[in-house]
Amino acid sequence: MEPRIAGEWEVSTWLNAPADTRLEDYRGKVVVALAFQMLCPGCAQLAIPQFRKLHESIRHPKLAVLGLHTVFEHHGAMGKEALEAFAHEYRLQFPIAIDRPQGDSVPVTMERYAMQGTPTVLLIDGEGRLRMQHFGHLPDLELGLPLGALLG
Amino acid sequence: MEPRIAGEWEVSTWLNAPADTRLEDYRGKVVVALAFQMLCPGCAQLAIPQFRKLHESIRHPKLAVLGLHTVFEHHGAMGKEALEAFAHEYRLQFPIAIDRPQGDSVPVTMERYAMQGTPTVLLIDGEGRLRMQHFGHLPDLELGLPLGALLG
Amino acid sequence: MEPRIAGEWEVSTWLNAPADTRLEDYRGKVVVALAFQMLCPGCAQLAIPQFRKLHESIRHPKLAVLGLHTVFEHHGAMGKEALEAFAHEYRLQFPIAIDRPQGDSVPVTMERYAMQGTPTVLLIDGEGRLRMQHFGHLPDLELGLPLGALLG
Amino acid sequence: MEPRIAGEWEVSTWLNAPADTRLEDYRGKVVVALAFQMLCPGCAQLAIPQFRKLHESIRHPKLAVLGLHTVFEHHGAMGKEALEAFAHEYRLQFPIAIDRPQGDSVPVTMERYAMQGTPTVLLIDGEGRLRMQHFGHLPDLELGLPLGALLG
Repeated sequence: MEPRIAGEWEVSTWLNAPADTRLEDYRGKVVVALAFQMLCPGCAQLAIPQFRKLHESIRHPKLAVLGLHTVFEHHGAMGKEALEAFAHEYRLQFPIAIDRPQGDSVPVTMERYAMQGTPTVLLIDGEGRLRMQHFGHLPDLELGLPLGALLG
Repeated sequence: MEPRIAGEWEVSTWLNAPADTRLEDYRGKVVVALAFQMLCPGCAQLAIPQFRKLHESIRHPKLAVLGLHTVFEHHGAMGKEALEAFAHEYRLQFPIAIDRPQGDSVPVTMERYAMQGTPTVLLIDGEGRLRMQHFGHLPDLELGLPLGALLG
Repeated sequence: MEPRIAGEWEVSTWLNAPADTRLEDYRGKVVVALAFQMLCPGCAQLAIPQFRKLHESIRHPKLAVLGLHTVFEHHGAMGKEALEAFAHEYRLQFPIAIDRPQGDSVPVTMERYAMQGTPTVLLIDGEGRLRMQHFGHLPDLELGLPLGALLG
Repeated sequence: MEPRIAGEWEVSTWLNAPADTRLEDYRGKVVVALAFQMLCPGCAQLAIPQFRKLHESIRHPKLAVLGLHTVFEHHGAMGKEALEAFAHEYRLQFPIAIDRPQGDSVPVTMERYAMQGTPTVLLIDGEGRLRMQHFGHLPDLELGLPLGALLG
């Protein structure tokens, strides 16, 4: 079984990175990415602090920590300005893409990846292949083992 | 030293309660109240889950659990619709007052109570007297002891 | 319904208190006591840290924090010398009574109180009446509320 | 820099494994080992639950989880019978070696590895080389990353 290349993200813009950043730009890095919604309790209480810890304490030259804001409900309350306030308050400094909205429905990237909800954790290897896609918070040990395997 | 009567809250409306609800309506109850902002991490991660637990698991006829949304920053991201989405996602069913805004400044009740920030915990006894006002999350034991003393 | 007086403890000796200390000596105080075994995981991981916190951080003139070592299994591994090592390592400075053994069976006080196992939490009011006896670890909020009510 | 081969453990016996088991028997496996004392709070509260979780939930054919009981204080309270009671109560089913005592001093293996205290975490690769020796509890993420790298 061969893992497929992770599809390019379709986004409207980025926080903490240039607006034209592409997932492909991270080829050569191991990417650990969090698809989240700022008003999802499991994201704010568990996954977001974990990703902040990954970004701040794991100093590995091959590691890239990314966020993907996949708003599929309460669109009016989770726009770009609200996300910026959230990122400011939670002191998030890793790049966060905003998944391209499709009206009040599921945004484009979330749909293409067939994500079931938030949080969803993605692991992408240095060749850009999607090695893990997990719906729900992953405890540190269960995230650390496959991530460590990719970082080598 | 005599504790003073807790000043009436000046609010624009309530969630989970009629819009004309007054703090005074809870006279006779022991009130434990949380002044919070929905985008404050210490609120979403610590204080809000604690107050949800207080409301859901402490079945005491004299206890009233209340929230007070005291927005003093990022006003555009924490309006009524956003708070409703937040309360829905965090499954908050206790009454939550929205502190009356004063432009982009500190809202009225927060200013009158001279609160330092969020979260702030208030304890009000059955006679309406303010018995405790604490800035920052209160661990369960430190909240349980004075609350138990008031409930008797 | 009237709570009964908590029966005097039948002990072989005490740590951190004179050997002839009696429960009755604490009349006038609110007693929160932990019946435990040093090799019981729920004791070492949850209840013992909670009681150390009660003893160290709740400075209330009416509060007495006590331990009762109720060994009902693995008697060879939980004698006085072992308990002293345990209390030293866990930095326990509150008085700990050693329940009087009855061969390899349940010790005397544990039997008289009909305790189901360890940990067991006891709350005794200033008149010496047993106000709560709870088998299993009590979360901080559930312990703080009734303890606060007794401390007033 | 080349990591050295992990020195053979000098032990008096094993729990959950034949008495003549040798560290060398695990050549070909990735070994994660915990040097601990049963009465050390950081061991009982943090490291032991983590190793139990490693043993029970990480089903990897190349992984071996081991314990090493390195008693350097309170020798009278942490003999073999006491350790058996501890392992029974904490439901530890991975192999645990008992480091060979040297009177009331530091036991042989602990001395040879120059361990600073307990808990100490060891990581040994499939060729028997010591890849990590860490004094103190390692949070799950910090253990998972290097362990994942060895498991590949």
